[in-house]
Amino acid sequence: MDRLRQQIDFILEIDNLKHILRRSKVTDGSRRENDVEHSWHLAVMVMLLAEYAPEPIDVLRTAKMVLIHDIVEIDSGDTFVYSTAAREAAHEIEQTAADRLFGMLPADQASEVRALWDEFEARVTPEARFARALDRLQPIMLNYANHGGPWREHNITAEQVMSLNMPILRDGAPGLAEFAAKLFLEAQEKGYFHEE
Amino acid sequence: MDRLRQQIDFILEIDNLKHILRRSKVTDGSRRENDVEHSWHLAVMVMLLAEYAPEPIDVLRTAKMVLIHDIVEIDSGDTFVYSTAAREAAHEIEQTAADRLFGMLPADQASEVRALWDEFEARVTPEARFARALDRLQPIMLNYANHGGPWREHNITAEQVMSLNMPILRDGAPGLAEFAAKLFLEAQEKGYFHEE
Repeated sequence: MDRLRQQIDFILEIDNLKHILRRSKVTDGSRRENDVEHSWHLAVMVMLLAEYAPEPIDVLRTAKMVLIHDIVEIDSGDTFVYSTAAREAAHEIEQTAADRLFGMLPADQASEVRALWDEFEARVTPEARFARALDRLQPIMLNYANHGGPWREHNITAEQVMSLNMPILRDGAPGLAEFAAKLFLEAQEKGYFHEE
Repeated sequence: MDRLRQQIDFILEIDNLKHILRRSKVTDGSRRENDVEHSWHLAVMVMLLAEYAPEPIDVLRTAKMVLIHDIVEIDSGDTFVYSTAAREAAHEIEQTAADRLFGMLPADQASEVRALWDEFEARVTPEARFARALDRLQPIMLNYANHGGPWREHNITAEQVMSLNMPILRDGAPGLAEFAAKLFLEAQEKGYFHEE
């Protein structure tokens, strides 16, 4: 029963991810979404969009990766992708968080989940590159749907959004990068970005 | 681009599942959880607890099933599991909802996702039986963690919780049913249920 107790304790602990709010808002703009909602959305996107990966991917491993990719933020908090300083500072804190959180699991599962998280972070395998592309595409889709609310609120320009996201999109999912590029143009025409 | 447009429209539409609140609350009891949070939690549980299925299961299919199992509630709303009348009334509405929502996808994916939802509902395959057991275990774990808040709020007795959930738990995941049975006893001792 010890093994099950460790698994249950981890499952209860990660309930806290429901409290970690992101900068992006749900499509109707009524509130910010949380890390769990974002992760669920990515997992469904993996299911439905896997065909856009430039080479065949292991869908199960990719889905697992996106399901757990933000769990460390229970300890470290969400890092705003447009804040370079915050992202650099977050790195060490996230490693400690990964040790504590994934370390709650039985050793075999702790290793498996840690390896998935490391893989996502390293962005080398086709699965991780695709997962990371979706991780960028999802908030872009939400922000477009709510007329660029979060971009304008946080003074984010079209140039920032494109330079930060297009390389990762092109690398992990070229077909989706093409779609995102069109969305950026439309968003720009509609004045959804911050203008300097 | 038509195929991708259909996929994107579906992915944006299901963002609305983030607004569908359940009766169960997050572990600290501070607020009700929504269908998306519940679905994410189940998907991680599938990842970590698949070993408790009484026969080997296809983990990817099971994960897909729990990720999409509540999407129909965008149109039908959440049905309280302890209200038999509401559950019967919901059936037809959910079928119409499934037609509309899954029908937004390209035909091949509409069929695949509809088949997954039908499989979950029918509770015949080992994957569906395991998924349904987790679907019952997750709110029990949350309700136990927040000292039975939702059970007492909605006048739910220990007898109701056990008779409604134990058969589904025993059928889909006997090892987890055993764990749940212990949890029920502890919850009863601690006065977490409504007492008549």
